Amino acid sequence: MEQLQYHEGRTEISHLGRVALVDRLTAGTACQGDDCAVLGTGKRRQLATVQTLVEGVDFDMMYTPLRHLGYKAVAVALSNIAAMNGTPRQVLVSVAVSNRYSVEALDELYAGIHLCCKRYDVSLVGGDTASTRAGMVLGVTALGDVEADRLTLRKGAKRNDLVCCSGDLGSAYAGLLVLEREKVTYQANPDFQPDLDGFDYVLERFLKPEPRTDIVEALRQRGVVPTAMTDVSEGLADSLLHLCRASGVGCEVYEERLPIDYQTSRVCSEMGKNMLPVSCALNGGKDYELLFTVDQKDYGQVKEMEGVHIIGYVTEAGMPAVMVTPQNTTIELVAQGFSRQ
Amino acid sequence: MEQLQYHEGRTEISHLGRVALVDRLTAGTACQGDDCAVLGTGKRRQLATVQTLVEGVDFDMMYTPLRHLGYKAVAVALSNIAAMNGTPRQVLVSVAVSNRYSVEALDELYAGIHLCCKRYDVSLVGGDTASTRAGMVLGVTALGDVEADRLTLRKGAKRNDLVCCSGDLGSAYAGLLVLEREKVTYQANPDFQPDLDGFDYVLERFLKPEPRTDIVEALRQRGVVPTAMTDVSEGLADSLLHLCRASGVGCEVYEERLPIDYQTSRVCSEMGKNMLPVSCALNGGKDYELLFTVDQKDYGQVKEMEGVHIIGYVTEAGMPAVMVTPQNTTIELVAQGFSRQ
Repeated sequence: MEQLQYHEGRTEISHLGRVALVDRLTAGTACQGDDCAVLGTGKRRQLATVQTLVEGVDFDMMYTPLRHLGYKAVAVALSNIAAMNGTPRQVLVSVAVSNRYSVEALDELYAGIHLCCKRYDVSLVGGDTASTRAGMVLGVTALGDVEADRLTLRKGAKRNDLVCCSGDLGSAYAGLLVLEREKVTYQANPDFQPDLDGFDYVLERFLKPEPRTDIVEALRQRGVVPTAMTDVSEGLADSLLHLCRASGVGCEVYEERLPIDYQTSRVCSEMGKNMLPVSCALNGGKDYELLFTVDQKDYGQVKEMEGVHIIGYVTEAGMPAVMVTPQNTTIELVAQGFSRQ
Repeated sequence: MEQLQYHEGRTEISHLGRVALVDRLTAGTACQGDDCAVLGTGKRRQLATVQTLVEGVDFDMMYTPLRHLGYKAVAVALSNIAAMNGTPRQVLVSVAVSNRYSVEALDELYAGIHLCCKRYDVSLVGGDTASTRAGMVLGVTALGDVEADRLTLRKGAKRNDLVCCSGDLGSAYAGLLVLEREKVTYQANPDFQPDLDGFDYVLERFLKPEPRTDIVEALRQRGVVPTAMTDVSEGLADSLLHLCRASGVGCEVYEERLPIDYQTSRVCSEMGKNMLPVSCALNGGKDYELLFTVDQKDYGQVKEMEGVHIIGYVTEAGMPAVMVTPQNTTIELVAQGFSRQ
């Protein structure tokens, strides 16, 4: 038998970081570091992606209804297809659970899975069930396609392109902050009734995100092909840095241009002076909005698109990714999204 | 917010069983209950499948070298493609681990993943890393294709077809028995050196299974399209019952025809009189051999195929799946493979 030899050296995963880890593990393979794998060579390219959600890390059963969890697991995978300018077609779902979960609990989970599939006209074509000793692990494989001439990668952004994003940013993280606050209060006093009034938007943003296939469709209708695209899963800063790194460019975005919902601002003001709405947008994550760049010639089309915001522009190779404040201070962006080690 | 309502009734997953559970959860969807989902409508059909392996349930880190684990995770997924008479093309791998694992440990895991991909000419095109609080969960999505006229499902077996299987059965389970025995001895006395001499075949069968893409290729070269096929992942009994249920037929297999390696018999004799080699074959599982049925006209071709055994024949609808012993006793088969609830 082959011997285990991996105890000779020990490097902590946290020391390397998630992106460098994936680069290291997939060196020399066909992995491109995009949101999906691109398969085939014809006029329509196949897209494939896997997303895994782990109980206690990616979701907390204390405040995550199973129906929402099922919906979210599918939505997050579909968002990766949208992030390549593609259309999702099928999903396969693998669910690993301990015997703590009942059949009725799984019914609820699958009700959410079916709901999201129906909402986005996607077929649940297969899957797998497995056991765990504790907790739940959800894996969703999403398959889709895109015309070869509309395929959009993270690389492709070039100097003077406009930087755009959809929806608003930071609201999913604001929802998480509310849920965590209520959880702490509940744990201190189980008779306490959670007070979620007035936070329905941010809560829904966190618990039931929507993949922006509508933006993909709107871009198609307007004849706009972005030069680069990704989704905002770990915060705007993380997504911008990925896009700039892949494209070999820098960028400049304007703080006052970042779309932030008033509920996000309200949550932040309740949380104290150290929690700024712009921090939620830059580093909160889980918004699953689209971040993309377009050529200047498409300015007129993009400006008219509902739910799309032009937040800055692409700068030349060698420049950093920065945010300019209303006071005209330039801040270099660093990735600080949800830890995923 | 929507309320959780799933606590009203509680049915244990173990009460329902895994197959009935999957049927219930995927009712009304495009899930066919085959080893893979079949996509598309053209001359070549796409195949997609997901396999999840959970630490402490599907593998035990105490005796599973990480390199073997990576190899096995891919091999098991590729076996599902082979089970549809297809050719695997790509895999996506998601790895969820706790910080107990070092980067070097993941290097070992991926060395096995890359090795299996290379061995079967499959591209690693994507994946996902995630964190767990404890343990490892491996998810492998395999994609492949098959000519529409060679696609083989679990349904399609008809009366008088020959029942065939590849390789030998029960050896993976025999390997597991050896590893479990050595583990118990080691736990009682950590100075003990495991004695694995003479068991290399069954150990390799358990730790490093191979998908039978060679059998798929041999069938193609001989112009044989099986009428039904699946792989043997939870024991021959389980696979036969699935195939018969899907095809609406019964079957009769002969105990003396079941291919059983001498090392499997040796392990059983060491384990005591209650462990029969035929039980390993019927109920052990994890062999990842192919089980298929062919029309009688293909007898001449199949008889000549290396590593293929004709073990019985298909009986008419309404008949059970049975095994006939050398003493001419007929035993109805029941599924008792590895529990995967």
